[in-house]
Amino acid sequence: MHSFDELLAYFEDNLKEQKFINEPEELYAPISYTLALGGKRIRPVLTLMACDIFGGNYKDALPQAIAIEMFHNFTLIHDDIMDNAPIRRGRATVYKKWSPNIAILSGDTLFAYAYQFAQKADKNIVQDILSVFNKTAIEVCEGQQYDLNFETRNDVSVEEYVKMIRLKTAVLFGASLKIGSIIGGADKDESEKLYNFALNIGLGFQLKDDLLDTFGDESIFGKKTGGDILTNKKTFLFLKALELAEEDTKKQLLKYYSSTEYNDEDKIERVKSIFSKLSVDTITETEIDKYFKDGIKFLESMNISRENKDELYKLAFKMIHRSN
Amino acid sequence: MHSFDELLAYFEDNLKEQKFINEPEELYAPISYTLALGGKRIRPVLTLMACDIFGGNYKDALPQAIAIEMFHNFTLIHDDIMDNAPIRRGRATVYKKWSPNIAILSGDTLFAYAYQFAQKADKNIVQDILSVFNKTAIEVCEGQQYDLNFETRNDVSVEEYVKMIRLKTAVLFGASLKIGSIIGGADKDESEKLYNFALNIGLGFQLKDDLLDTFGDESIFGKKTGGDILTNKKTFLFLKALELAEEDTKKQLLKYYSSTEYNDEDKIERVKSIFSKLSVDTITETEIDKYFKDGIKFLESMNISRENKDELYKLAFKMIHRSN
Repeated sequence: MHSFDELLAYFEDNLKEQKFINEPEELYAPISYTLALGGKRIRPVLTLMACDIFGGNYKDALPQAIAIEMFHNFTLIHDDIMDNAPIRRGRATVYKKWSPNIAILSGDTLFAYAYQFAQKADKNIVQDILSVFNKTAIEVCEGQQYDLNFETRNDVSVEEYVKMIRLKTAVLFGASLKIGSIIGGADKDESEKLYNFALNIGLGFQLKDDLLDTFGDESIFGKKTGGDILTNKKTFLFLKALELAEEDTKKQLLKYYSSTEYNDEDKIERVKSIFSKLSVDTITETEIDKYFKDGIKFLESMNISRENKDELYKLAFKMIHRSN
Repeated sequence: MHSFDELLAYFEDNLKEQKFINEPEELYAPISYTLALGGKRIRPVLTLMACDIFGGNYKDALPQAIAIEMFHNFTLIHDDIMDNAPIRRGRATVYKKWSPNIAILSGDTLFAYAYQFAQKADKNIVQDILSVFNKTAIEVCEGQQYDLNFETRNDVSVEEYVKMIRLKTAVLFGASLKIGSIIGGADKDESEKLYNFALNIGLGFQLKDDLLDTFGDESIFGKKTGGDILTNKKTFLFLKALELAEEDTKKQLLKYYSSTEYNDEDKIERVKSIFSKLSVDTITETEIDKYFKDGIKFLESMNISRENKDELYKLAFKMIHRSN
């Protein structure tokens, strides 16, 4: 099989070929800009990889790999409006660089293009592919809505949080592999196992995001830590801390998350110290490891070669045990 | 064949069956609300009708009729954010009733649902259907972007305006009929003629919108006229007037469209009087009639029964020679 890096290089080369130089320029420039910003490209490579694993020609899965990357970027463009996020991958977000209206509309257009690519498949499997794609698109929207709802709620449980990140983040990893496996010719049972593998790894991936944002080593993480604390984001760490804390500590924590009397450094230090005292960092690590192991169980139960399992294992390990 | 009213009743009954009672409620309530607001439902009925005309069972085109109505409503939800429009069909718009974020996200979700319905077709035609659907979705976005661009431009030509309404409005009428005809089994040539019929009728339909907004009989139109003038909208009437006016009148007109010194009634009267003096109302009527006749030429060239042509003729006549 082909390695992650080989497939990544193939994908990048071909994504570059997609030129959005159409008119009106205001609509297409933000699309080119967003797709060129980069990112890890894990999702599209997963699609190529799954096709490869089941004996398909990975090049046959290119349109769907592009569709998934386009869909992912569409969600980022719209999420950045909703989250008032001025910076993404070190550059101004579309709504900030252009305007919210242009961000809405270029996002919509990118979504339509994603579908244009998604349907480029053999007619015997196109509806299976689109069913996964549609279901996932709807779930990702649901996840984002839960995330928005959580901002104004004070009674979010850890369980609800996990449901939210499953929808907002993990299902797209699942869909990326599942769609690739359909193109590669996998049977339903194997596709489903691969999906569940990715779902668990995706959950671990997101919890790792939460952990790094607060406890990452800044020199490796590549940006300042504490962003989630400063924006009062209800992450796994925060919700777990609330769940574990005694009444006094809980009050303290809620005060830090609602008061403006602390300066940034001070607030981050105080919250981190509560997290550490409650061992929330270790607990999160353990939880991530649990998801990793649950994912690997699905992988091991699959009827594919050792070599293929190892390649997916390596990728899952990299996604979860990363430092940035 | 079945009449417009029969197909409309069938469509309404079946659209009501689509329940969006899923969670999260914040995401699905705006979708139910929007779909229940009504509207003329011309587009989905066109889809059923085209299928019927070519000997298909119109019920087979129901998923695509629903897809098109959902797509149309998705564009309305997003357009209302971009246009700051507080009212649609006499009720608060989604962004106003809920929030811009909820409007963005419920719109996105409705778009994904539209695709979920669009792909419910025989595998031998599903990609033809989706190609039309995708192309149209992208064009509608392009049209809306041109419309947004025009707001801040002072050199929009009548030709550019017609291109904009072709993309924003007419192509969806074309797609509605074309998709229905594919399901009904039409050959490519006939589908194309039907598409061009609808494109012309769609252009006439939009020009009629412009005309009624300024010169409609309020007692029949059902709402106050002059809305486009008050919002300085660059309609066909306005652009035609600029094209025809002498330098002095042109300056006057531009002044009315940029100054805030006139009260509403006064501004409407002054602009209407310029339009009338330049015969812009009659010119628009003539232009509408031209599109109507061009559309009918495509209809007459088709290889379908007299009865079917008459039904489409009646509908086109109703769309164009309406008073509200």
